[in-house]
Amino acid sequence: MAFLHRKQLVFDAKPQSSDPLFAKKLQELIGGQYGEMTIFMQYLFQGWNTRGKHEKYKDLIMDTGTEEIGHVELLATMVARLLDGAPVEEQEKAAKDPVIEAVLGGMNPQHAIVAGMGAMPADSNGNRWTADYIIASGNLMADFRANLNAESQGRLQAARLYEMTDDPGVKEMLSYLIARDTMHQNQWIAALQELAEEEGGIIVPTTVKEDKEAEGFSHQLFNYSEGEESREGSWATGASPDGKQFEYVDHPKIVGGPLELKPAPAALHNTPPPKK
Amino acid sequence: MAFLHRKQLVFDAKPQSSDPLFAKKLQELIGGQYGEMTIFMQYLFQGWNTRGKHEKYKDLIMDTGTEEIGHVELLATMVARLLDGAPVEEQEKAAKDPVIEAVLGGMNPQHAIVAGMGAMPADSNGNRWTADYIIASGNLMADFRANLNAESQGRLQAARLYEMTDDPGVKEMLSYLIARDTMHQNQWIAALQELAEEEGGIIVPTTVKEDKEAEGFSHQLFNYSEGEESREGSWATGASPDGKQFEYVDHPKIVGGPLELKPAPAALHNTPPPKK
Amino acid sequence: MAFLHRKQLVFDAKPQSSDPLFAKKLQELIGGQYGEMTIFMQYLFQGWNTRGKHEKYKDLIMDTGTEEIGHVELLATMVARLLDGAPVEEQEKAAKDPVIEAVLGGMNPQHAIVAGMGAMPADSNGNRWTADYIIASGNLMADFRANLNAESQGRLQAARLYEMTDDPGVKEMLSYLIARDTMHQNQWIAALQELAEEEGGIIVPTTVKEDKEAEGFSHQLFNYSEGEESREGSWATGASPDGKQFEYVDHPKIVGGPLELKPAPAALHNTPPPKK
Amino acid sequence: MAFLHRKQLVFDAKPQSSDPLFAKKLQELIGGQYGEMTIFMQYLFQGWNTRGKHEKYKDLIMDTGTEEIGHVELLATMVARLLDGAPVEEQEKAAKDPVIEAVLGGMNPQHAIVAGMGAMPADSNGNRWTADYIIASGNLMADFRANLNAESQGRLQAARLYEMTDDPGVKEMLSYLIARDTMHQNQWIAALQELAEEEGGIIVPTTVKEDKEAEGFSHQLFNYSEGEESREGSWATGASPDGKQFEYVDHPKIVGGPLELKPAPAALHNTPPPKK
Amino acid sequence: MAFLHRKQLVFDAKPQSSDPLFAKKLQELIGGQYGEMTIFMQYLFQGWNTRGKHEKYKDLIMDTGTEEIGHVELLATMVARLLDGAPVEEQEKAAKDPVIEAVLGGMNPQHAIVAGMGAMPADSNGNRWTADYIIASGNLMADFRANLNAESQGRLQAARLYEMTDDPGVKEMLSYLIARDTMHQNQWIAALQELAEEEGGIIVPTTVKEDKEAEGFSHQLFNYSEGEESREGSWATGASPDGKQFEYVDHPKIVGGPLELKPAPAALHNTPPPKK
Amino acid sequence: MAFLHRKQLVFDAKPQSSDPLFAKKLQELIGGQYGEMTIFMQYLFQGWNTRGKHEKYKDLIMDTGTEEIGHVELLATMVARLLDGAPVEEQEKAAKDPVIEAVLGGMNPQHAIVAGMGAMPADSNGNRWTADYIIASGNLMADFRANLNAESQGRLQAARLYEMTDDPGVKEMLSYLIARDTMHQNQWIAALQELAEEEGGIIVPTTVKEDKEAEGFSHQLFNYSEGEESREGSWATGASPDGKQFEYVDHPKIVGGPLELKPAPAALHNTPPPKK
Repeated sequence: MAFLHRKQLVFDAKPQSSDPLFAKKLQELIGGQYGEMTIFMQYLFQGWNTRGKHEKYKDLIMDTGTEEIGHVELLATMVARLLDGAPVEEQEKAAKDPVIEAVLGGMNPQHAIVAGMGAMPADSNGNRWTADYIIASGNLMADFRANLNAESQGRLQAARLYEMTDDPGVKEMLSYLIARDTMHQNQWIAALQELAEEEGGIIVPTTVKEDKEAEGFSHQLFNYSEGEESREGSWATGASPDGKQFEYVDHPKIVGGPLELKPAPAALHNTPPPKK
Repeated sequence: MAFLHRKQLVFDAKPQSSDPLFAKKLQELIGGQYGEMTIFMQYLFQGWNTRGKHEKYKDLIMDTGTEEIGHVELLATMVARLLDGAPVEEQEKAAKDPVIEAVLGGMNPQHAIVAGMGAMPADSNGNRWTADYIIASGNLMADFRANLNAESQGRLQAARLYEMTDDPGVKEMLSYLIARDTMHQNQWIAALQELAEEEGGIIVPTTVKEDKEAEGFSHQLFNYSEGEESREGSWATGASPDGKQFEYVDHPKIVGGPLELKPAPAALHNTPPPKK
Repeated sequence: MAFLHRKQLVFDAKPQSSDPLFAKKLQELIGGQYGEMTIFMQYLFQGWNTRGKHEKYKDLIMDTGTEEIGHVELLATMVARLLDGAPVEEQEKAAKDPVIEAVLGGMNPQHAIVAGMGAMPADSNGNRWTADYIIASGNLMADFRANLNAESQGRLQAARLYEMTDDPGVKEMLSYLIARDTMHQNQWIAALQELAEEEGGIIVPTTVKEDKEAEGFSHQLFNYSEGEESREGSWATGASPDGKQFEYVDHPKIVGGPLELKPAPAALHNTPPPKK
Repeated sequence: MAFLHRKQLVFDAKPQSSDPLFAKKLQELIGGQYGEMTIFMQYLFQGWNTRGKHEKYKDLIMDTGTEEIGHVELLATMVARLLDGAPVEEQEKAAKDPVIEAVLGGMNPQHAIVAGMGAMPADSNGNRWTADYIIASGNLMADFRANLNAESQGRLQAARLYEMTDDPGVKEMLSYLIARDTMHQNQWIAALQELAEEEGGIIVPTTVKEDKEAEGFSHQLFNYSEGEESREGSWATGASPDGKQFEYVDHPKIVGGPLELKPAPAALHNTPPPKK
Repeated sequence: MAFLHRKQLVFDAKPQSSDPLFAKKLQELIGGQYGEMTIFMQYLFQGWNTRGKHEKYKDLIMDTGTEEIGHVELLATMVARLLDGAPVEEQEKAAKDPVIEAVLGGMNPQHAIVAGMGAMPADSNGNRWTADYIIASGNLMADFRANLNAESQGRLQAARLYEMTDDPGVKEMLSYLIARDTMHQNQWIAALQELAEEEGGIIVPTTVKEDKEAEGFSHQLFNYSEGEESREGSWATGASPDGKQFEYVDHPKIVGGPLELKPAPAALHNTPPPKK
Repeated sequence: MAFLHRKQLVFDAKPQSSDPLFAKKLQELIGGQYGEMTIFMQYLFQGWNTRGKHEKYKDLIMDTGTEEIGHVELLATMVARLLDGAPVEEQEKAAKDPVIEAVLGGMNPQHAIVAGMGAMPADSNGNRWTADYIIASGNLMADFRANLNAESQGRLQAARLYEMTDDPGVKEMLSYLIARDTMHQNQWIAALQELAEEEGGIIVPTTVKEDKEAEGFSHQLFNYSEGEESREGSWATGASPDGKQFEYVDHPKIVGGPLELKPAPAALHNTPPPKK
């Protein structure tokens, strides 16, 4: 037995009333780029791919990844309940009632046609979830930065959705997800600090030897967009986070050559050389 | 005039010899999840979407985004040069020479068939680049975490590719990209610190009011994966990065209800209720 | 000559009146996961991939696959006719008329912008059709189960759409598609029975020898979701469809080992081992 | 607590030796169209979307869906172990050794570059998993047919992979998955029979009333592919599975009209009408 | 320095008033199949992949590709401004005002939830941009035809959108894009004529030798769709553009054999041969 | 009856010998961006979407679209035959024979695992076909340019593949496809000329009135990529194809304003304004 399921939600998912338009929007938290499907699949693959002795990190990842499957369950249940009572039948009357028509026009039609009033593995525009969204690189510092980003984007979206509804049941559930995202941002920040201490560095990967890096270019800010507003920041001058010095380069010098390419072999039928 | 192009590479892209198998691998840095297409498109959209007075950040984003278009150019040129001299014609002799056959079998066939020995907007497995990879949320702290992640994964991949070749020209180009990724990790870390000071917080978004968050759950680590190795980390007890206290919860309590859903309307032809 | 086209629809596609919102929904039957593009492409590839002497099955597949191209034609014509008369010009007046505004808001904008009031190879949310939806495995019993599923989901969606309109012309066309899906479900069930008799088995593939299967696990229901409601079904005890005995396992025993993985080679720059 | 994880594999995943080429192939069972990601996500969404009182079915779905998460874990661990010891560094020597070169050419390059010798959420060609593969329609008879298909295709692929390796550890794991797929085919067949009895029909959805179906077309086999081999089957004449009579139609009659469409509004700039 | 950015739009992007529904539609020109992301990425890759001495063409491509990055910038800014003032908060009042409800229902929800009122790299249905849209083949005549097509579809869509708004600021910007597309159609037509003269032919690729083509089939129009309306065109009889003679073939003869395939190896577990 | 199938190939598909590596490459012509699936689906949708009285064009489109379904059939059969005899079983001996190993490493693994030695709806890298590749805009001049492009890219790829094999049977089939692509390029060129005469113009769409276009920008070549090689072409000076005069603009003037955007509403939790 690897995984076990209990038939209770991690939190309440009881909306006060039906709201099929909000159900469509809430799909973003299920199957969007930073929805919970992304979060839990990313964590599980990271846990499974952790090589070597890193038990405390691996357990943290699996704790959180397993928790997040339950968040998809919570949101899927909420979406289904928000769809209760949506108008789905013949539109004769609806056509005369602009509010019903607006609801029908604004619903995700697949909630009715494809899913029979259930949640879908898709975002708020109906784009299906894809594993293009996730990463498990085998380097924990890189991946915890991915996780910190995901929990940040996720909490941002939950906070936005919180403002877009006035259903107290939906708000309560979102306040729970917002809280859990607070914890998860905290934990990945803490874990990143712990890894930085253990590895003795903050530039991923910390194991690149100096002779493999063209260090003359490692701390220069190149001014490629005219105007020098970027010179005002802490990233332009002074100490860099990795303990060196930033340098602002107003007019980056040219170091590479031209873009010329040799002709292709004739067998490929590229544009032939000019005849003359 | 918004953008301007100069016909010189940002760095050298001169391989010592042809290597179509490495050309295939190098595509990861062009059109992969964390390739330079991702980086520059993400930055440009972040810059264009920056609302309000945040000029120093916006300029930093546009500086870096514009630089990265040149990185795609650099890598595309390198891929094309690595493809020079690849065997593309009839295979009669090749079939007798396992090394040629292996090269042919290991090449990306689309480099010849589709692109005429040019680079493609695709990763090392030939998957086309997709905007699913990028984010521009309008919240800079969230997005700079995305950027820090992208530059971390990107440098990790460049470092791995560095080890997979012994062509000095390719290594030199990779050492340049590794260096630029060092800068970009440094700059996003610095910018994140600056934003944290300005916003007075590190939990994205920093603008969520307390009553919108179920704070009882904001600092608890839930032990959902059996074994307590995760209790060993700085994320389980003591001060959290946002200045509160972590709490380790060995047996998370059940707070939500059951998963039951009402029947669907008959018009949807879901499974009908049991007849008896 | 392999295929031939006749310029008449397989059935009528005459709506009583314009309905651009329903046109959007009807796209599900053209380019959705179980739309007619899926059906006909799946059948053609299955027919083309049938190896060996299975002429009666291959002909059945090609008969049906060829029929289904005409169903796309029928639906595309209906979508185009439902779009006749949709409001597409300047919205000044529309903004004052909520019904027109609702129509404009609920239309698929690409029907106007991209397709000039024609059907698209996309579903009801505008997701383009993809060959990810189809299967042609070379094993007819497997594939006929795929076909039975596709015709079941397809008829379910057609039945749902039937309830969502009161246009008699659209209803009539849908009643035709519902009828054809009845036939196709019937035919795949019949063909599956015929294959089962010929192959002497119903577990796909029927050709796996006994020593290639860990038979101790072939008829056990594992209770991984707490609660024992699943014990009530015919799948938990008694004879199994393949002639053995089902067994309900309340507490599945652990048979596998831990998840530990060896460290990665240093050249890959995964997280380095803890220094101490 | 909704889901719980235990840190032991559901079965052994110990290959006798490294085999990075087989690791690439085995990815089909993780992230392919019918890989275990498809299976578990499909089942979880079906369980969550089950409306009304169908507890025995819902529990069966959740039992199996939860089990299958563990199958991804099992396969991911196996892929990682098959990648142990793969050649990833500089290729100087490899170029002289065609066997190593062939291994390098045949590996999934992302196993090294992206995943640091871990499994990926992708198929054997490196295509990322997509939710386009799954269905949860709210109609259990439809969905159990989808499940029966998925378990059939899945077992077929596992059986093919079994023949493609001679590593006893890999074969043993595959024999376990083959066995579980036997159980799951059995269980969905049994559940389909139970549903058919309860609903009193086998044509999905069983709830379509007769007047909504153009019944004259519900049992006719249309001969659209020349040659009459399909007339030989049980689907052409005699009793149909739903208790009616099949009819073979050699020359299907034309019942629909022409394909003509009205001109588009001028505002859409379609091809203008001929000037004369 | 390869690319340089200046902080001014190529044209004005000042709408007279907010219009979030039109913002959704305008996304087609940014991230649609023929949006500006397609145009500029296609041109840049074509420029980078140009092999041999074709400087005047390569410079033309890079001139235009660089210009088009600025068009994305222009459109992204317009989308953001059209989103200013959109209703995004709690819907209590909205539910009573059908116009607001219609706006909310018709907006792209990701403009608020994901992008914080910024433009997205997506089309008017929210489908993310994909490199599936672009081509850079190494053959300039082929690619300039792709470009001519892209500028034609792009201008068509811009013209349609022009008719769908009455905001003078939006119309003005669209009239600029329409004009630039006029130029780009003109330039690719001119460049195609120049290439045709240089290569001495118009059938791509012009370098295929006669013995590699089954010339008996090179100028025949096959009548596969019943009815002979196509016989009326200049493509059916008389001189063909490449200087030969068209031939209309009313009843194409059969030249190929049957579709039979050998059985698959037993190891693949395809359908076994009939037992008797 | 709308479509009819005859069980004979449009041409021969008999390879002299097995070649699973070439089978993988040949997939490009089936399911690639410009494979025959693209061609036939594009043509069918264009035919179905043709509005108004354009019978000669519509019939031409349907003639060709129907022909191309048979090309997929031809290629699918060829792929299956090239796969005959490929090594698929246990690799013990193979591991000692680098040629077999190279074949195994270079094959598309899904040809065996997924398709049982049949063709797939995918390209030469295994990417599944997607309707993102096709267009049917309702404007025939735009679409015939898309068709001319598709037939150009398609013939280019067929010509490249011709050079990559020395199997006379495969070459013969490719010479047939090359010939048909010659015809189809010819026919679309002829049809484009006919449309241009009928519409009295060559800039798509020809129906945009002058006051809807900022004509000052309609014939200017902007020099955005440094260097003036593009000034040498016929597109920089002199008469333009639409009968006006080209103008070369060395230093394009700035006409647009800055990129500033208003702050987002607080409810969206974008980056808050600086506190000072």
